[in-house]
Amino acid sequence: MFLTRTEYDRGVNTFSPEGRLFQVEYAIEAIKLGSTAIGIKTKDGVVLAVEKRITSPLLEPSSVEKIMEIDAHIGCAMSGLIADARTLVEHARVETQNHRFSYGEPMTVESTTQALCDLALRFGEGDEESMSRPFGVSLLIAGHDENGPSLYYTDPSGTFWQCNAKAIGSGSEGADSSLQEQYNKDLTLQEAETIALSILKQVMEEKVTPNNVDIAKVAPTYHLYTPSEVEAVITRL
Amino acid sequence: MFLTRTEYDRGVNTFSPEGRLFQVEYAIEAIKLGSTAIGIKTKDGVVLAVEKRITSPLLEPSSVEKIMEIDAHIGCAMSGLIADARTLVEHARVETQNHRFSYGEPMTVESTTQALCDLALRFGEGDEESMSRPFGVSLLIAGHDENGPSLYYTDPSGTFWQCNAKAIGSGSEGADSSLQEQYNKDLTLQEAETIALSILKQVMEEKVTPNNVDIAKVAPTYHLYTPSEVEAVITRL
Amino acid sequence: MFLTRTEYDRGVNTFSPEGRLFQVEYAIEAIKLGSTAIGIKTKDGVVLAVEKRITSPLLEPSSVEKIMEIDAHIGCAMSGLIADARTLVEHARVETQNHRFSYGEPMTVESTTQALCDLALRFGEGDEESMSRPFGVSLLIAGHDENGPSLYYTDPSGTFWQCNAKAIGSGSEGADSSLQEQYNKDLTLQEAETIALSILKQVMEEKVTPNNVDIAKVAPTYHLYTPSEVEAVITRL
Amino acid sequence: MFLTRTEYDRGVNTFSPEGRLFQVEYAIEAIKLGSTAIGIKTKDGVVLAVEKRITSPLLEPSSVEKIMEIDAHIGCAMSGLIADARTLVEHARVETQNHRFSYGEPMTVESTTQALCDLALRFGEGDEESMSRPFGVSLLIAGHDENGPSLYYTDPSGTFWQCNAKAIGSGSEGADSSLQEQYNKDLTLQEAETIALSILKQVMEEKVTPNNVDIAKVAPTYHLYTPSEVEAVITRL
Amino acid sequence: MFLTRTEYDRGVNTFSPEGRLFQVEYAIEAIKLGSTAIGIKTKDGVVLAVEKRITSPLLEPSSVEKIMEIDAHIGCAMSGLIADARTLVEHARVETQNHRFSYGEPMTVESTTQALCDLALRFGEGDEESMSRPFGVSLLIAGHDENGPSLYYTDPSGTFWQCNAKAIGSGSEGADSSLQEQYNKDLTLQEAETIALSILKQVMEEKVTPNNVDIAKVAPTYHLYTPSEVEAVITRL
Amino acid sequence: MFLTRTEYDRGVNTFSPEGRLFQVEYAIEAIKLGSTAIGIKTKDGVVLAVEKRITSPLLEPSSVEKIMEIDAHIGCAMSGLIADARTLVEHARVETQNHRFSYGEPMTVESTTQALCDLALRFGEGDEESMSRPFGVSLLIAGHDENGPSLYYTDPSGTFWQCNAKAIGSGSEGADSSLQEQYNKDLTLQEAETIALSILKQVMEEKVTPNNVDIAKVAPTYHLYTPSEVEAVITRL
Amino acid sequence: MFLTRTEYDRGVNTFSPEGRLFQVEYAIEAIKLGSTAIGIKTKDGVVLAVEKRITSPLLEPSSVEKIMEIDAHIGCAMSGLIADARTLVEHARVETQNHRFSYGEPMTVESTTQALCDLALRFGEGDEESMSRPFGVSLLIAGHDENGPSLYYTDPSGTFWQCNAKAIGSGSEGADSSLQEQYNKDLTLQEAETIALSILKQVMEEKVTPNNVDIAKVAPTYHLYTPSEVEAVITRL
Repeated sequence: MFLTRTEYDRGVNTFSPEGRLFQVEYAIEAIKLGSTAIGIKTKDGVVLAVEKRITSPLLEPSSVEKIMEIDAHIGCAMSGLIADARTLVEHARVETQNHRFSYGEPMTVESTTQALCDLALRFGEGDEESMSRPFGVSLLIAGHDENGPSLYYTDPSGTFWQCNAKAIGSGSEGADSSLQEQYNKDLTLQEAETIALSILKQVMEEKVTPNNVDIAKVAPTYHLYTPSEVEAVITRL
Repeated sequence: MFLTRTEYDRGVNTFSPEGRLFQVEYAIEAIKLGSTAIGIKTKDGVVLAVEKRITSPLLEPSSVEKIMEIDAHIGCAMSGLIADARTLVEHARVETQNHRFSYGEPMTVESTTQALCDLALRFGEGDEESMSRPFGVSLLIAGHDENGPSLYYTDPSGTFWQCNAKAIGSGSEGADSSLQEQYNKDLTLQEAETIALSILKQVMEEKVTPNNVDIAKVAPTYHLYTPSEVEAVITRL
Repeated sequence: MFLTRTEYDRGVNTFSPEGRLFQVEYAIEAIKLGSTAIGIKTKDGVVLAVEKRITSPLLEPSSVEKIMEIDAHIGCAMSGLIADARTLVEHARVETQNHRFSYGEPMTVESTTQALCDLALRFGEGDEESMSRPFGVSLLIAGHDENGPSLYYTDPSGTFWQCNAKAIGSGSEGADSSLQEQYNKDLTLQEAETIALSILKQVMEEKVTPNNVDIAKVAPTYHLYTPSEVEAVITRL
Repeated sequence: MFLTRTEYDRGVNTFSPEGRLFQVEYAIEAIKLGSTAIGIKTKDGVVLAVEKRITSPLLEPSSVEKIMEIDAHIGCAMSGLIADARTLVEHARVETQNHRFSYGEPMTVESTTQALCDLALRFGEGDEESMSRPFGVSLLIAGHDENGPSLYYTDPSGTFWQCNAKAIGSGSEGADSSLQEQYNKDLTLQEAETIALSILKQVMEEKVTPNNVDIAKVAPTYHLYTPSEVEAVITRL
Repeated sequence: MFLTRTEYDRGVNTFSPEGRLFQVEYAIEAIKLGSTAIGIKTKDGVVLAVEKRITSPLLEPSSVEKIMEIDAHIGCAMSGLIADARTLVEHARVETQNHRFSYGEPMTVESTTQALCDLALRFGEGDEESMSRPFGVSLLIAGHDENGPSLYYTDPSGTFWQCNAKAIGSGSEGADSSLQEQYNKDLTLQEAETIALSILKQVMEEKVTPNNVDIAKVAPTYHLYTPSEVEAVITRL
Repeated sequence: MFLTRTEYDRGVNTFSPEGRLFQVEYAIEAIKLGSTAIGIKTKDGVVLAVEKRITSPLLEPSSVEKIMEIDAHIGCAMSGLIADARTLVEHARVETQNHRFSYGEPMTVESTTQALCDLALRFGEGDEESMSRPFGVSLLIAGHDENGPSLYYTDPSGTFWQCNAKAIGSGSEGADSSLQEQYNKDLTLQEAETIALSILKQVMEEKVTPNNVDIAKVAPTYHLYTPSEVEAVITRL
Repeated sequence: MFLTRTEYDRGVNTFSPEGRLFQVEYAIEAIKLGSTAIGIKTKDGVVLAVEKRITSPLLEPSSVEKIMEIDAHIGCAMSGLIADARTLVEHARVETQNHRFSYGEPMTVESTTQALCDLALRFGEGDEESMSRPFGVSLLIAGHDENGPSLYYTDPSGTFWQCNAKAIGSGSEGADSSLQEQYNKDLTLQEAETIALSILKQVMEEKVTPNNVDIAKVAPTYHLYTPSEVEAVITRL
């Protein structure tokens, strides 16, 4: 019953009688309005691919950043509110830099993900770094550390999971089905690139070009593909 | 009368005319939506077993952690909001480490449980570590100290009880009945493993595999079973 | 008229037009849902007896603590929210320890009771130790100091009274009547034990066993009865 | 019109359109629910007398303190919420002690009363000593300083008046009329005792005994009557 | 339309659509419930006269202070909430004392008035000295400094005006008319006394006596009339 | 639709669906209730003229200050809530004094205006100097610095504009029209005086006298006209 | 459905069930009420042009600043609430100055834009620099750094994009269409000036003059056109 629900869902951090946190669930809805992003882990590294919504031909495509580097060995793709994602990424960059400085070695991918989720969980608490509402963004975090390549998926509740492949954003439902059909553990990095882009192509309503998708890999270091590298993958499709 | 109830249940920490704290009761509802976890104490140690809900074949099962180590002699199983549980566990880890550092000996299981519950009770008070709402998670805390093995059960109100055996989560009602029938004080650790897993099997709607359950013991130190150790228990069923 | 009352009773600390503080009154209701506790003062010391609600045969009866030691010469029985009571008791323990350290002598029972009530009165004020709602618990505080044995009763409003005998919790109404009939100032400690347990037996809906009641005395130091000591009292009934 | 009034009376400290502060007025109502207290000033000193409501024969009458010493030369009787009164009295005790320490002489009765009222006025302001609601208590403050004996009356708004005689609490209306009839400036202290107790007797619904009334005087130092001294006054009636 | 107005008037400090601050306007209403006070400036000094409402013959008239000294050269009469006025006067006394200490000379009457109004304006801002609501009091501030005698009038909005003569409180409307008729700049201090008291007599519903009015002058220092000095003025009427 | 609007206009600082800030708009309404003020810039300096509403013949006209000096080279006329204006002016005086102290030269008129507007913009933010609501006042700031004479106009939103001539307050609409007709850049200071006063005369409902208007100029220093100087301008009309 | 929407849109920072942040969307509406601004990037530099709404002929056109310098190599045009824009620009000026001081080189245009957006994102969080509501302003930030000329567009959500050309404000829809038709990467700075002004002319309802438009360029340093330089561009149309 909708009217009753509205009684509980405006308190930023309040349980409903059924034990639900509506503001977090609504933030998760914000992701469903976002552009699609896909991550695939292979034994050689992780591939990230995102749809870039270029709303005007006058926008500079390279300024629509939906894949960002966190540290030399970690990158992430995002869907949802981009300004929120930038805050999280900036926080993670500081954490990984501090870790390198303090311990003389890179932060593990899981610790980095945990640090991001700690910040996401603490919304509504009024301390300096936290937000007054949930972060309206999901991340696919690709990394490579002493345990090899790994791919994490985070949501606005501050929960994270490790995945072999995952899609987020408005096209995630169809994309996840395709990933389950096409994924196997022996994929090469090049096959993963092709799968990611072919699935992205299905969910996008326009022709795929180097201007409206971005691809990156962590294998074992982060690399964002140049337009010609993206073009090469498109050609292979 | 539902409409009247809603008048009292949104204040995070307000008594209703009948003397009830609804936000805490709703957080307890969140547990009933969670996956099932079971703990059994034997004279040789404590066994914990949890159902892992793997929503997609592309998720890495080992990253769905619902049993976690707190200290070498304490572990816990959880049901409810996983991100909340991680915060509590992280808090307990710091407390037990500080205790070891200050006193040169491990913290008792009861003190550790009390420390977790102190944090859970203080929600809504705005100081640094507490949350602005109740923690939506129940824990089964298994440990071994100078008093031998012990099993504690905590709920979102910050209350705890010591138990011989206990189930939490969506299947807890049926599982608790089965535990009462099958429990006796002379169970061996191996018998406890078998009972825990057989009960978990009843409440899960799918076949039990090393991918969708986790088992751990504290006997007298914490050990999370490897997939092949889990497989061995499954075989015994 | 109920609807009008609800207008005033959610502000944590607001007077109604008739000069009432409803949140405190509702917290007092929480006590009426609690288990029954009884205290009797004799010239030789004070006896406390409580009903323990063991909701499952798998619970460890000794972990359901409803009588707790505050200092060597003070103990208390509680009814209501156990987690709240633990916070009050912990506060009182620190106060009595500090007093011993600063003055080299035990704190009087009245000062200890006053310290507990000061904390209870300060709810809703946002400083570090106070809660954001009234404490939903009543205590029977038994002690022995330079003035001999004494028994205090506190309620959620932070008010306290000195009593010769008192019952709190769901069965308090009937139990208080029985106490008035059976109490006289010349009771021995053993007679007080028998009266307390016989009254508890009347209000409990099950057979009295060492598992579902606890007895303690302060005469002149705190002592919680062992199961066999409880059994001995039961036998005398 | 009652419904309109309720719009203004829940804000702790908000004026209604007619310029009234309802929360303070409601706190004043709380006094009307309290037990009756009477103060009479004579040229030789001040007498205070209060009704003690002993709700159960098992309560210790001497623990129902409604007359308390503030300093050697000041005492007060109270009506309303006893826990609130204790906070005010404790505050006044600290103030008078500090004054003695800093200036080497007792604080005047008026300054002590002003200090109490300053605290009462500051409710709802969130600093450390103030409450989050008005103090629900009235005091009759009896004292003796360089200006001779004096009697002050305070209410929850933080206002105070100097009186020759005054009654507060549920029976104050009738008692004030009697006081006006019987008071004259040449009363002896003994006559004042008799008048106070005879008026208290009229408003109480039970027989007056040393158990259900307290009497104290400040002449020139505070003295709480022993049961036998109270008995002597009763006999004189 | 009254219902619409109520939508805006409970926020302590919120503009209505017509640009009005209702809480301040309501506080001004509180003055209209207060007793009447009159101030008249002459070339020789300023006269203040107030009605004292003695609600009971047992009240000490001299304790109903509605004219107070601020500094040797400044006094004030008040109407409205007396406890609020005391806070303002206490603030002004500290300010004038600090000024004497820092600069070795008395504070001017205007600066003192400004300091009072600064405090009155800052309500609702949560810092230490300010109140959480408007001060419900108006003051007539009489003083004498290097510019000669002066009379200021302040209202709850923190605004002040310099006047030759002014009445405040429940009888202010009629009293102001009378003052306009009778005032001229050449009045002697004695004539001003007579006018003030004769106007006060008109608005009071009872016979004027030294018990129910107070008179003070600043000429050039503050002096509160003794009962016999008041009697002398009454006789002149 | 009025009812819908009220949903948005009480939050101190909240956008309506059309992107409007109603509390600021309502504060601007407060100006329309204020007295009229006029400023005219000439090549020789700036003239300010204001209507003084003397509500009673007993008010001291000179104490109704609606033109105030900020620094030797800056003055301002105000319309709206006078107590708010005093706070802004006091803030500007401190800023200009600090600037002189730190840099050894006067603050420019624009920087002074910006400093005033910064304070006005920050309402509702809870820091020490800001108010909890918009400042309900508009200012005409007249000054003379290294860029010659200048006139600024500020409104409650914290926006400011530089003008050649401007009217504010209840009569501003008609006065602005008249100013547009009569203004030209070659006006002498004396002509500006005459125009300002003649326009003020049109919007005032009573005869213009030195008692109910004030005139000031900054040419190049601030000077408030004496009654006889005002009389001289009136005579020229 | 409008009524339902209003339930979510007053919390400053709350998600609606569809995952939207209404207060940010309403702030974006505030821009649509603002004057039109246009930015065009060429290989030689960036041109900014804005409409100045001169509401009265007595306003000083040069004081209506809608193009402002941030640093020698960065300028910005704004649409929406001018006072909000000034706060953002002032913040950016401090950031760029600090950067020059710390690193001895100018801040890049992107870092400057990011710093502005960080401040915009943090509204509602109560720390010193942030606002209690979204900033109701969009900026076109034109700059020139080691990567050559660049143009950024920011909105109230704290998001930014890099553009080749962009229009904001009430006329932005039509202006954006015209820009897409007329823009190509080989435009000279002079051609960009002409295009910007011709498009501005279409959306303005009055004749274009040096008084009601402003033009600036960053090529490679910031320069605001003088009236005669603007006149020259108008003539070229």
